[in-house]
Amino acid sequence: MSTPSFPSHPQIVDGWFKEKPLLWPGQAMCLEIEEVLHMEKSELQDILIFKSKTYGVVFALDGVVQCTERDEFAYQEMIAHLPLNCHPDPRKVLVIGGGDGGVLREIVKHESVEEVILCEIDEAVIRVAKQYLPNMAVGFDHPKVKVIIRDGFEYLKEKPESFDAIIVDTSDPIGPAESLFQKDFFKLVRDALRPGGLMSIQAECQWLHLSFIKEIHLYCLEVFPVVEYAYTTIPTYPSGQIGIFVCCKEEERNLRKPLRRWTPEQEDKLCKYYNAEIHEASFILPTFTRSFISQYKPSK
Amino acid sequence: MSTPSFPSHPQIVDGWFKEKPLLWPGQAMCLEIEEVLHMEKSELQDILIFKSKTYGVVFALDGVVQCTERDEFAYQEMIAHLPLNCHPDPRKVLVIGGGDGGVLREIVKHESVEEVILCEIDEAVIRVAKQYLPNMAVGFDHPKVKVIIRDGFEYLKEKPESFDAIIVDTSDPIGPAESLFQKDFFKLVRDALRPGGLMSIQAECQWLHLSFIKEIHLYCLEVFPVVEYAYTTIPTYPSGQIGIFVCCKEEERNLRKPLRRWTPEQEDKLCKYYNAEIHEASFILPTFTRSFISQYKPSK
Repeated sequence: MSTPSFPSHPQIVDGWFKEKPLLWPGQAMCLEIEEVLHMEKSELQDILIFKSKTYGVVFALDGVVQCTERDEFAYQEMIAHLPLNCHPDPRKVLVIGGGDGGVLREIVKHESVEEVILCEIDEAVIRVAKQYLPNMAVGFDHPKVKVIIRDGFEYLKEKPESFDAIIVDTSDPIGPAESLFQKDFFKLVRDALRPGGLMSIQAECQWLHLSFIKEIHLYCLEVFPVVEYAYTTIPTYPSGQIGIFVCCKEEERNLRKPLRRWTPEQEDKLCKYYNAEIHEASFILPTFTRSFISQYKPSK
Repeated sequence: MSTPSFPSHPQIVDGWFKEKPLLWPGQAMCLEIEEVLHMEKSELQDILIFKSKTYGVVFALDGVVQCTERDEFAYQEMIAHLPLNCHPDPRKVLVIGGGDGGVLREIVKHESVEEVILCEIDEAVIRVAKQYLPNMAVGFDHPKVKVIIRDGFEYLKEKPESFDAIIVDTSDPIGPAESLFQKDFFKLVRDALRPGGLMSIQAECQWLHLSFIKEIHLYCLEVFPVVEYAYTTIPTYPSGQIGIFVCCKEEERNLRKPLRRWTPEQEDKLCKYYNAEIHEASFILPTFTRSFISQYKPSK
């Protein structure tokens, strides 16, 4: 059987996509390609979209998987519902990044939400998601959603109206998203939150990036009184999982238990990954991470 | 920079090990090779041992990663301590498979244990582990440990003395381990357990193998009154995690909470992954798995 021929791309080798080892040297997830759907250099990044043999449509930026149709829900649900179910009544939500629309799709499941603003730096991401990932981009169709094409850092600097939750759904901290992992950015987020408001932000992988996690953790702890680290499993992110920092502006808020819960029947209808029990379990860390964090995090 | 040259092996491509997509078509974990340490065809399987760039020594059977020095503890600790900490006083333990010695290393951390028998089908696995994975094979040095080179199924058929726990630490259910995922085998295990005894067995990945998990689950439920599914995260197993069935011969035993606990200080000393909190969290499943299991598992 001869290898099918695909357009030339640095991450395509012998009919397989081999992820670029950006922040995870020495390892690479490979996905077998059925068809290359789209290649583009946007102003900011290299975009590759392909149909894989077993993960549906795959969306990669600068050689790194951002999402696949088969497992994206694990990330989108957790980064959205961990903060939103820790808020008693979220009405106004901001998404920084998230141009695929998946987080929007999750946010509007909360009936209290009246308005969602999505601030994405690269219009190309939204355009290709609408074309190739309709089950994620469906989030853009919701009447409560407003889109702004802009750098999230710059947007917050201009002191927009304030929010009950800000979800920072970014790519890795190398490239366009770099400024979103800085203390100054977290201060802008805090100042844009209403009393009791929450932030969530993707925070790489405990199996790979403990020193990075520490750096971000310490920034967050300087800015927010309550900061917790959770994780979700997801096959196509490096090492099969990704962390999420959840931060709250209000002291004494317990983020490790949902303040609001769906019934198990509602959970079955609304979610494929998130549920109230996994909300709690996602903050329980293996001994190596727990020990590592206890070395620098002040205990209560 | 030219690619270093390594001995020819079907899973070595351009200086990288590319895992064989055995039960996970369309995806492959790749690990960059520093040095190939050993290649051998034992009577039963193809053995490859290499030093990777970022995961230490890697041990592969028939093209599939069995363990790496960097993350093996996540699996060894969980498959051993989940059942053992659900037993009030484990004295005698059997390991089926486990020829790398890692599970032995964990079992002897329980001071109550007086004897451990390891029954491994392939002597070559033990031999190469002793040479290349000394931090795992250290388990063989313990005076409480006895080794038998034999097919685990055949060994149990001859009705050996009975055990407080039987840990089935096998490769995937294609190849030498196939007979260990059958109902007849689980009956032999049950009959070799003392009252209140427990079995644990690796059970593939919920992201990949729900129908296989269902099959094994139903076999276990026919044989044991208490059966629970847990999982551990581990970067170098397919999709970054592996499941574990824990079964108990005694009705009403709650496996989801440890019966015995180490203090957090002991946990820090004894374990890198396992702790009493993660014991409980490891049984909490994402909504898609919970829903899937609830379709066939009789509720209490």
